[in-house]
Amino acid sequence: MSDTTPEGWTEQGRPPALFRRFVFSCYADTRAFLDRIAAVQEALGLAPQNISFGTTYVNVTIAAADGALGDAERTLAQRIAAAAEGTVA
Amino acid sequence: MSDTTPEGWTEQGRPPALFRRFVFSCYADTRAFLDRIAAVQEALGLAPQNISFGTTYVNVTIAAADGALGDAERTLAQRIAAAAEGTVA
Repeated sequence: MSDTTPEGWTEQGRPPALFRRFVFSCYADTRAFLDRIAAVQEALGLAPQNISFGTTYVNVTIAAADGALGDAERTLAQRIAAAAEGTVA
Repeated sequence: MSDTTPEGWTEQGRPPALFRRFVFSCYADTRAFLDRIAAVQEALGLAPQNISFGTTYVNVTIAAADGALGDAERTLAQRIAAAAEGTVA
């Protein structure tokens, strides 16, 4: 099951990446989520390739570190999604 | 002079916006800059339309609130640029 796309994420092809958009009802929730993403990536030693955000949304792109998505990228995706639970609009 | 594009920023046309890319030598500097941007926008009550970042860069887009760029947007741009001073790579 390790090659399954994490629930809620979109897998992109070239280059391989996982993408997900998170929407929040206010800036405070957006900001709190960004702080939790930072904590997750520091804990895992792996960062999303790009995080693009505005006042009430955060788009996260996780790229494959070595040409193909692996357990590390999927774990990062799942941990980030878990960090948004309960606060997404 | 209030209609001058802030130094280091690119002014875009449709829709009107100010754009600037900041590059850092490490994630810690990137992260510190993001925290300072948050403090600036909370102090001014005005946020960039979009902030897109990776481990060592931050792209900032400041959109016109009401159809045209004004002093508020230029002040936000200048305060954000000042927050990066001394840490950009």
